Amino acid sequence: MSSSSTAPAARPPIRDALVAAAFRLFLDRGYEQTTVDDIVALAGVGRRSFFRYFPSKEDVVFPDHEGCLAEMTAFLAASGPEHEPVRRVCDAARLVLRMYAENPAFSVQRYRITRRVPGLRAHELSVVRRYERALAAYLRDRFAGRPDGTLRADVIAAAVVAAHNNALRSWLRADGAGDPGAAVDHALDHVQRTYARTADAPAAAVWAGPDGSGAAGRDEDVVVLVSRRDAPLWRVVRELESVLDRS
Amino acid sequence: MSSSSTAPAARPPIRDALVAAAFRLFLDRGYEQTTVDDIVALAGVGRRSFFRYFPSKEDVVFPDHEGCLAEMTAFLAASGPEHEPVRRVCDAARLVLRMYAENPAFSVQRYRITRRVPGLRAHELSVVRRYERALAAYLRDRFAGRPDGTLRADVIAAAVVAAHNNALRSWLRADGAGDPGAAVDHALDHVQRTYARTADAPAAAVWAGPDGSGAAGRDEDVVVLVSRRDAPLWRVVRELESVLDRS
Repeated sequence: MSSSSTAPAARPPIRDALVAAAFRLFLDRGYEQTTVDDIVALAGVGRRSFFRYFPSKEDVVFPDHEGCLAEMTAFLAASGPEHEPVRRVCDAARLVLRMYAENPAFSVQRYRITRRVPGLRAHELSVVRRYERALAAYLRDRFAGRPDGTLRADVIAAAVVAAHNNALRSWLRADGAGDPGAAVDHALDHVQRTYARTADAPAAAVWAGPDGSGAAGRDEDVVVLVSRRDAPLWRVVRELESVLDRS
Repeated sequence: MSSSSTAPAARPPIRDALVAAAFRLFLDRGYEQTTVDDIVALAGVGRRSFFRYFPSKEDVVFPDHEGCLAEMTAFLAASGPEHEPVRRVCDAARLVLRMYAENPAFSVQRYRITRRVPGLRAHELSVVRRYERALAAYLRDRFAGRPDGTLRADVIAAAVVAAHNNALRSWLRADGAGDPGAAVDHALDHVQRTYARTADAPAAAVWAGPDGSGAAGRDEDVVVLVSRRDAPLWRVVRELESVLDRS
């Protein structure tokens, strides 16, 4: 799911040269000690070229996020009613992983630099927040008019981002070894299992009997029953009957 | 739950005077146009006094977060095995709400300024992230050694923060009208209902039958069954039996 099935958009060579020069200098002498003038000198271009591609020194560290955000927004905008919304935002999150996985060495380098520089961490947080808002905006639209629609949209968007980043960070900390796609799929499946069943239906509440033997909760059209495995079957059925009003 | 049951710690009057002067100037002439020198002049204190209390101009906007973070960390550190972990992090999040609710006028003012100034929004994101990390660290400890322990810890911490902030922001956007405690309680209950049942038990998977009639998932010692209300009872029981290996 995370592997790149389409070629990345062509990027101007000057832009790539600026990114390469910036990272070389950040690693050699440190991020704070590197100026935009140093970067353009090493890349052999003028100062104006830098600001044509990047609003600030922070942005050269995250050169592909704007493109990825645009891709995610377009992906979500192209959704239809046939798309289960929680699955859809999980698929949207996989676009971010794909960007990181396309260039493991660069992603690992950036992760190391970002962890060391507070200003870059703050910048990265604002980028992550923009992804989360894009996911939440889509879900708010899908859940519009439903009870707790914006609440559920915000919570699910945050859960998707947290799950994605949990797997992504593990991979980056392991120096990009292994398959990040499998780890992210596992993490996102966890979120989907939690939310996909109830997100599109009226909220279903789950209770447990006081002795843990089992109990059932009802809602408009979904019944959720939680039971200990060792509870007697007759008790579980009786609980179920009472909730279904069939006793 | 969100009302203040204990008096806030005494704060030095100079600190309060600096905050009051800063907000007055931010509202009158804008945040970017206000310098630390302007603030200390209006407060009638020296420049060194400012930096005794605040590392930077950003921090004067969020004067109570450091104290609240310390309070949250102490609250979580004082937890025992008797505390259900998801409930505990929800209660920890209520400490943040209490700080906002203690001074509605100030909180609403700050919200308006923060929304207008990108640098302040970035600073606020980093503060929110620190709360989230504190919650996640506690949950990682509680879930240590369990399958997907760190994943679930990170996801639940993010869900708690998102739910809390959803309710908090609604209240701030409504100019601090109404009871923010009730709204935050409602939002956090939503997270607790989603996670508290399974968070402390082995992960319980939920499936639905291909025709939506109902299906059951099994785990070590918990069975979760999801069914449409209109499914025939005999089918639901048969599904349940097959999962419980009692057929």
